Amino acid sequence: MSIPKETKQYLLAEKPTGSVNLTSAFKLVTTPLPELKDNQVLIRTKYLSNDPAQRGWISPQRAPDRLYVPPVEVGEVMRARNICTVVKSTSANFKEGQTVVATSGWTEYAVVDAKECTPLQTVGSLKETHFLGALGATGLTAMYGLDVVETSAKDQVLVVSGAAGATGSMVVQIAKKLLGVKTVIGMAGTDEKCAWVRSLGADICLNYKAKDFKKQLRDATPGPHYVDVYFDNVGGAILDLMLSRMGKHGRVACCGAVSNYDAGDKAEPIRAWGEVISQRIQLKGFIIFDALPRFGEYTQKLIKGYKDGKLSISDENETIVKAKFEDIPKTWLTLFEGANTGKLVTEI
Amino acid sequence: MSIPKETKQYLLAEKPTGSVNLTSAFKLVTTPLPELKDNQVLIRTKYLSNDPAQRGWISPQRAPDRLYVPPVEVGEVMRARNICTVVKSTSANFKEGQTVVATSGWTEYAVVDAKECTPLQTVGSLKETHFLGALGATGLTAMYGLDVVETSAKDQVLVVSGAAGATGSMVVQIAKKLLGVKTVIGMAGTDEKCAWVRSLGADICLNYKAKDFKKQLRDATPGPHYVDVYFDNVGGAILDLMLSRMGKHGRVACCGAVSNYDAGDKAEPIRAWGEVISQRIQLKGFIIFDALPRFGEYTQKLIKGYKDGKLSISDENETIVKAKFEDIPKTWLTLFEGANTGKLVTEI
Repeated sequence: MSIPKETKQYLLAEKPTGSVNLTSAFKLVTTPLPELKDNQVLIRTKYLSNDPAQRGWISPQRAPDRLYVPPVEVGEVMRARNICTVVKSTSANFKEGQTVVATSGWTEYAVVDAKECTPLQTVGSLKETHFLGALGATGLTAMYGLDVVETSAKDQVLVVSGAAGATGSMVVQIAKKLLGVKTVIGMAGTDEKCAWVRSLGADICLNYKAKDFKKQLRDATPGPHYVDVYFDNVGGAILDLMLSRMGKHGRVACCGAVSNYDAGDKAEPIRAWGEVISQRIQLKGFIIFDALPRFGEYTQKLIKGYKDGKLSISDENETIVKAKFEDIPKTWLTLFEGANTGKLVTEI
Repeated sequence: MSIPKETKQYLLAEKPTGSVNLTSAFKLVTTPLPELKDNQVLIRTKYLSNDPAQRGWISPQRAPDRLYVPPVEVGEVMRARNICTVVKSTSANFKEGQTVVATSGWTEYAVVDAKECTPLQTVGSLKETHFLGALGATGLTAMYGLDVVETSAKDQVLVVSGAAGATGSMVVQIAKKLLGVKTVIGMAGTDEKCAWVRSLGADICLNYKAKDFKKQLRDATPGPHYVDVYFDNVGGAILDLMLSRMGKHGRVACCGAVSNYDAGDKAEPIRAWGEVISQRIQLKGFIIFDALPRFGEYTQKLIKGYKDGKLSISDENETIVKAKFEDIPKTWLTLFEGANTGKLVTEI
């Protein structure tokens, strides 16, 4: 493998408010690569993880100390988690040709400290890209969020929004197949996605764009029991609606608010707050990084669930888009249009 | 005491949406009183408790099974908790002239089963009306809500809205004097109320109607620590604002949403939901009835706090309005205009 002297990179060019303008938000540059110091590796990006959370990292911050990770600043390489190949190594822990996971961003090549790389696990014939999704951060997010609201076989009804997304599709499977929740109800944006969510084990999946969606949701979550657990990936109008479907002492795992990442002051409002009081609802925000000490345990549970045939992890769990380096931002942006089923991965 | 044969009562005449129209919402009637059966008492209303929750009991219900208590139906006596005098008794447990607490509603006299009455406690020279407020349901609500979010001396900063109200004024005192929270910050609607809240032990009290209120709140709750516990009596815009002042893993006790009881679809929206996720905020709705098994324990703690000189319970903790029976609805409605400091009690 020839050793490159420079690399293409996408830098953040502005902190977008509202919709991201691709022509002004990111800037493609070519940058010299430094020489390797001791215990460093030169890596080449193979696959990039596309995550809704990245939108938050580039928003203007009213108070930077309130972000759960430092924001990406203008002029910095856009942050992303990647699967990479080691091209050159001065570390005893990594050798040329090895596959690693690193948060190296939208870059073709990078020189990073060896300690910032994790060797990629392999499980049977499972494709390595699943370690960005079902068996990576999104699978761990599903495990942790269900734990945060103490989901168990005692729960009769669980609802999850964004059920055809990377996290939601794992929530459906873990809740139904590993935790034993009686009835799992998904929500997704097309009938095709709903069919896939049902194939994963959901008892019901509702198309939230259907004309009579509200009625369908009411019929699917009847009183007096209503809903025990709502795993919220979207916030906004759907969360507002779900508050009036939660049962007494219902729990909401607040994982994401993808409906609002672009919205600023136009964020879809939550108005049904009286329900939180009258039904004694608990809502808990969480961030996967807090679960770091449990990553090993969670990963083993996910791998065991897969080996036992309980968790379906296949090509259907990810949407891999082969793209030229130049098209990385465009591919990422399709996340917010619901283009993907399962994890959206960019292959370079 | 002469035995009346009939009583004045206020019945619910319509289920109001939006602002309550006094001329159409309630109907004054005179009703015959039944003869006493065994184990009943005839009681005369002395004091009526006025509570924001009563507004919810008379709203039209989309789903009646979602109210935490049965709604008041049109044609029924308007529900209220009262301090009453026993006029006649066929129960061995109550004698004429005794003072009791009963949920007998907006009625001059009532015949009720003895088991629906509770003898009024007496503590030194403390006025009996405090058993509707500081030592009654509102004091218990403050105790329970602080428990629900596990408030303790480990907490550095607690904020409470409606701090000059019946519940809020007890939250301030209990948090500061009994639980040992380091900094207690109240919010109230006039400078006079704020001065009183500070006299109860609050380190700071902000007038939320002040022009620079948002700046004052920011200055009072600086990062990186921000706020540990927010006791929310109001919901709406203030809750929305507080989400951006909560610290990491902050907890919100969701007690009331007085800003929205009248509002229907115009309820003040909550938009800053992303904060719940990025700060891992927990929000917990609660209803005092769930704490029934702890009422005895809580009441003893409140009485001990009073006797130890830690809790201030005096004429300043209540606004007693002497009113003709006919003016009960009008007096009640002043609750929503912030007319009261502490508990609003109507004396007949």
